[in-house]
Amino acid sequence: MTQFFTEEGSVEAVNARMGSDVDPRLKEVMACLTKHLHNFAKEIHPTQEEWDIGIDFLTKTGQICSGERQEFILLSDVLGFSMLVDAMNNRRPVGATENTVFGPFHVAGAPERAMGENISLDGKGETCLYEGRVVDLQGEPIEGAKIDVWSDNAEGFYDVQQPGIQPKWNNRGIFTTGEGGRYSFIGIKPVSYPIPDDGPVGKMLRALGRHPYRPAHMHFLVTAPGYQKLVTHTFVGDDPYITSDTVFGVKETLVAPFEHVGGETEWCSHFDFVLTPTARDP
Amino acid sequence: MTQFFTEEGSVEAVNARMGSDVDPRLKEVMACLTKHLHNFAKEIHPTQEEWDIGIDFLTKTGQICSGERQEFILLSDVLGFSMLVDAMNNRRPVGATENTVFGPFHVAGAPERAMGENISLDGKGETCLYEGRVVDLQGEPIEGAKIDVWSDNAEGFYDVQQPGIQPKWNNRGIFTTGEGGRYSFIGIKPVSYPIPDDGPVGKMLRALGRHPYRPAHMHFLVTAPGYQKLVTHTFVGDDPYITSDTVFGVKETLVAPFEHVGGETEWCSHFDFVLTPTARDP
Ligand SMILES: [Fe+2]
Ligand SMILES: [Fe+2]
Repeated sequence: MTQFFTEEGSVEAVNARMGSDVDPRLKEVMACLTKHLHNFAKEIHPTQEEWDIGIDFLTKTGQICSGERQEFILLSDVLGFSMLVDAMNNRRPVGATENTVFGPFHVAGAPERAMGENISLDGKGETCLYEGRVVDLQGEPIEGAKIDVWSDNAEGFYDVQQPGIQPKWNNRGIFTTGEGGRYSFIGIKPVSYPIPDDGPVGKMLRALGRHPYRPAHMHFLVTAPGYQKLVTHTFVGDDPYITSDTVFGVKETLVAPFEHVGGETEWCSHFDFVLTPTARDP
Repeated sequence: MTQFFTEEGSVEAVNARMGSDVDPRLKEVMACLTKHLHNFAKEIHPTQEEWDIGIDFLTKTGQICSGERQEFILLSDVLGFSMLVDAMNNRRPVGATENTVFGPFHVAGAPERAMGENISLDGKGETCLYEGRVVDLQGEPIEGAKIDVWSDNAEGFYDVQQPGIQPKWNNRGIFTTGEGGRYSFIGIKPVSYPIPDDGPVGKMLRALGRHPYRPAHMHFLVTAPGYQKLVTHTFVGDDPYITSDTVFGVKETLVAPFEHVGGETEWCSHFDFVLTPTARDP
């Protein structure tokens, strides 16, 4: 290897530049990043104009970010990168409920509610009874598990997206499992909604012939001492976007039954959550 | 392949989402980007916290960009990406002068100067006679070639970095080759300078144990009808940063002689530019 940059030796030239006293993990990550970045360029052979477009896209993506808007997270989401990182960090044994992306709309400190209470405070949408059990891998009930739930309203917006329009804590609440690990609450049958698509990421989706929608889902954050935190959704199976979630959050096992029961509460969705112990025997 | 996202099938899941009516080149570039991005993640297995750091870094890099500051270009530069793209787009036959990065400091419309004129207008620095010839691959002189040159001043700043402090067009000028393809002008022996390192990229360089310096160089943009545009520098070989240019711009063939002649003009740098014809016989 020459001491200077060459097209062939480009990866080595860059990575050889790192100091000897660098954090080993940072070194590993950056060396890998350089390799893939250069190999990407070597594979597609970008023109100078394409490089300009790339620089401009990244710049605009950064510049639209604000306290309320995180366009780089959207970018990570629509490229399946967020979901991939989530999947790699939450591999679970067969039978355990799978994780999916956390999303940007969780708010800590939602009201603790009694079993069976209704979290839909704006009176809009089709009501749905959510019920089931929290159990361990052997099917034994876990009592006292916390179930933090949140969904959009019937118009596809989370309460935090419409402050002053929706009641505070609309479609949010925390429940605690009782006897038999059982939980139940009333909410609405959620609806599909688009991610913010008026920025660079939305423009990219359009250029790629992709829509910005997420299929209807109810968010769940389930925690219990001794078990891995479960961040997941249940999805409405007949949603038109169920196989084309723009952030790739759907897993087959998370498609839940939504039964039309047609009573005062119109729908019923039964789903059992199977938690994984924090430390498992090998 | 399942219709849903899986860790194993993540690349295919994302790329299958592109529409059928998408620009084929965009499709190719994005499919390749997704592949390398996911393979990068699969290789280093980022934690959720590392993902946060990455998102934050990209966001800050975008947010410091302004009309005068382009941090994503700096990022591309220090990762050797700019140089790689330049190299791939400017492969030249053996014997032709090699390209290097254009850099952000060229200004179009510099004054046309007569052969031998001095471009250093602030009277600072060690004077240097630049001379040589512009020739073709057969060594035949190219008369009437335009040589647009620019360098920093003795304090390491380009005139555009110090408006009101340096005279306008300091260390810049355009020369035209005469008989025998010859050129000559007087400038200064340039000095090494750091790229802007008070932002996210500077912070990254420090974390990687890298300095932000470019070895001393004179910029040349050489054009002649019928020949490929040549964007290059000549480098001062005894510069302490000659083997560690922070943007990887140095090529072995671009290290020029800087001879101490010790007259009224202290240095002399002789360099011949060999141009490549635009359309070459196969
Ligand atoms: Fe959501
Ligand atoms: Fe420069």
